[in-house]
Amino acid sequence: MDNLVATANMMADAARAAILPFFRDKTLVSTSKEANGFDPVTQADRAGEEAMRAVLAQHRPDDAILGEEFDTIDGTTGLTWVLDPIDGTRGFVSGTPTWGVLIALNDANGPLLGLIDQPYIGERFIGFDGAAEVAGPAGTATLQVLGDRPLEQATIFTTFPEVGTDTDGAAFKAVAEKCKLTRYGMDCYAYALLAAGHIDLVIEAGLQAYDICGPIGLIEAAGGIVTDWSGGPAHNGGRVVAAASQEQHKAALDILAQYVND
Amino acid sequence: MDNLVATANMMADAARAAILPFFRDKTLVSTSKEANGFDPVTQADRAGEEAMRAVLAQHRPDDAILGEEFDTIDGTTGLTWVLDPIDGTRGFVSGTPTWGVLIALNDANGPLLGLIDQPYIGERFIGFDGAAEVAGPAGTATLQVLGDRPLEQATIFTTFPEVGTDTDGAAFKAVAEKCKLTRYGMDCYAYALLAAGHIDLVIEAGLQAYDICGPIGLIEAAGGIVTDWSGGPAHNGGRVVAAASQEQHKAALDILAQYVND
Repeated sequence: MDNLVATANMMADAARAAILPFFRDKTLVSTSKEANGFDPVTQADRAGEEAMRAVLAQHRPDDAILGEEFDTIDGTTGLTWVLDPIDGTRGFVSGTPTWGVLIALNDANGPLLGLIDQPYIGERFIGFDGAAEVAGPAGTATLQVLGDRPLEQATIFTTFPEVGTDTDGAAFKAVAEKCKLTRYGMDCYAYALLAAGHIDLVIEAGLQAYDICGPIGLIEAAGGIVTDWSGGPAHNGGRVVAAASQEQHKAALDILAQYVND
Repeated sequence: MDNLVATANMMADAARAAILPFFRDKTLVSTSKEANGFDPVTQADRAGEEAMRAVLAQHRPDDAILGEEFDTIDGTTGLTWVLDPIDGTRGFVSGTPTWGVLIALNDANGPLLGLIDQPYIGERFIGFDGAAEVAGPAGTATLQVLGDRPLEQATIFTTFPEVGTDTDGAAFKAVAEKCKLTRYGMDCYAYALLAAGHIDLVIEAGLQAYDICGPIGLIEAAGGIVTDWSGGPAHNGGRVVAAASQEQHKAALDILAQYVND
């Protein structure tokens, strides 16, 4: 068990070192996509994922790998590492400190371990086996979701006001209108804030598996709940709702139910 | 001159120390407003401004002070310190690392010096007398705005999609539709990203003087331009447009012109 957490931390360390040189490097912005075949964020994405795969090749060679940038690798252990080297590429190219490295370890039922790392801040949120913690500028602390409060006291996040399709946007708005505070623009960092007990709900749509497995593993370990909009498993991506309590989750699903067949 | 920059840095150091204990402190969230008369963010706001005013009382007792939380103090030097201890209180209460301490030093014509500090990241952006720099997790670097690129390649930020009134929102949308990328949710941090050369435009409305004087001093020192929506001075707040070049600024004003009388 410790081995798995240690491996995830080594992977996140390696991704940090590989990606940070590209972040806010303005000489790269002027390097056109045509000149080298990849734009800077794609270069950073690939460098980050290569660094994580190198750690796995050395320490967990028999596990499967599902990553954003390279081919899936089959394994023999029943465990799959799910990797997104840069979640929030639009935030990354804008210089915001709210993109992240996402790592999950899944078995057939979904994430067992989840990690969100923000390399520039030097902040890492990790959850495994019912325990979650953050290590960052303020030191190390145990993470616990906020717990229940009614929607009218809740803070809800999504990355883009449009969310996805027109229906996705209308569904988000229907929930957000019941909440106290709606905020945007945090990419994966919103899931970290939910795990850390600062916000109540995150609703997104159009996600890939690698966008959400890290957040699921983290949030579940901190006591929260993440499902699709019908209450089913979310680890394959699509439409996702994350909540700090069963009651909030149910209240959100009740509203989203009007939209799930559109 | 060095004295003024040193004073601003001492003030920002003092505000950091005063405010950080309140950030992400969940025991404070459960302390109701009724129990002590102030909510946690107001306590943090007041503690931050008191700390900055104490530095001024010691080092610049003859300057005027305009702050968010306490009464204006008149001075005799013709210089006014303009203080917002926590810009982005909704981000602060949500745990996001994108609120900031804003400090400006104004003469009768507007800001001479501007500072944006993000205490949790430990990152400070300061501009004075035509030179601007950042000191943070990646060390110290000179700041320079991105310079001109057409709106169709530009990244534009505002904090809330609604921006302000219906007209404010429509005006922002009219400019944003011409841009490549629109992002939300960064509070004052968006102005720091503009000064640092990562984004092109920030448009907001309904600002107070203390919300914008720090960003103006910083952005102008990094080579950018900040005005109201008619091209006039912005240091009294209201509707503001910040741009990385004269050309972008003019292109934005041309669009905003349809809305300035509404």
